[in-house]
Amino acid sequence: MDNSMSEIVVGPIGRVRNEVKEQRMGRWEEVASEIVIEEGLTECLDGLEQFSHIIVIYWMHRVAPVRQPIDKIHPRGRADLPLVGIFSTRTSHRPNPLGVTTARLVERKGNVLKVVGLDALDGSPVIDIKPYMPGYDSPPDAKAADWVEKLR
Amino acid sequence: MDNSMSEIVVGPIGRVRNEVKEQRMGRWEEVASEIVIEEGLTECLDGLEQFSHIIVIYWMHRVAPVRQPIDKIHPRGRADLPLVGIFSTRTSHRPNPLGVTTARLVERKGNVLKVVGLDALDGSPVIDIKPYMPGYDSPPDAKAADWVEKLR
Repeated sequence: MDNSMSEIVVGPIGRVRNEVKEQRMGRWEEVASEIVIEEGLTECLDGLEQFSHIIVIYWMHRVAPVRQPIDKIHPRGRADLPLVGIFSTRTSHRPNPLGVTTARLVERKGNVLKVVGLDALDGSPVIDIKPYMPGYDSPPDAKAADWVEKLR
Repeated sequence: MDNSMSEIVVGPIGRVRNEVKEQRMGRWEEVASEIVIEEGLTECLDGLEQFSHIIVIYWMHRVAPVRQPIDKIHPRGRADLPLVGIFSTRTSHRPNPLGVTTARLVERKGNVLKVVGLDALDGSPVIDIKPYMPGYDSPPDAKAADWVEKLR
């Protein structure tokens, strides 16, 4: 089997519920969300509560996908930051508007995950959930571009 | 706009090239790959070379998607590890077989990224590239399930 040349179709496994109805930049650290997973997939979550953090892959459903996006942006629209390619930023304006965010898992109750720090709008379809594995997911020697420091 | 209820279609932005033709478990740390991005998206990579690591989101094109997967597995098929839900593992047998891997960026030349440590088979379609941002992507207090230690 090789479907590498075709379009790729994914289906939501669940949905984000929170109080954030409109896009915003930053200030997500304390946002609490629930991720409601399809009931038929409940057992697929077993053991997740043994991880303090999870990687949430979600679809930015309020952003129109663009095959030929703007090539470069100033991160967060800030003119004091350099103009860089969109793949060098976390902007939602990308060919496939997927979010990949590590969030703190506060509680798992059945098919509902309570998380903090997820930067997804209310209603966002969730595509995948992975356990966050320190070391594997966090190279100790990683270094970011200088402009990232100015975001804090 | 709200397309949250529908199927989600994504299109490859590039493709992985390496020497790994068949699936395997582990031993990816030293694998060198090239990610060849579509030429029309070359400028979208500008500035990426200022990051030591990138997050690669790719499609596991040799795995058949399954809407109702096996609920639980022993990680890497090892009977000495607990039986856990598939979302508690990084198995490729998940409803949407997406890989999310942080890899070391060795070089960027035009539309080609040379990386080390990407666990994708040759030919895998790449869906998105994001810069790895220490701190944002690596919560300092993260803790994994006990069985993860036994994978090393």
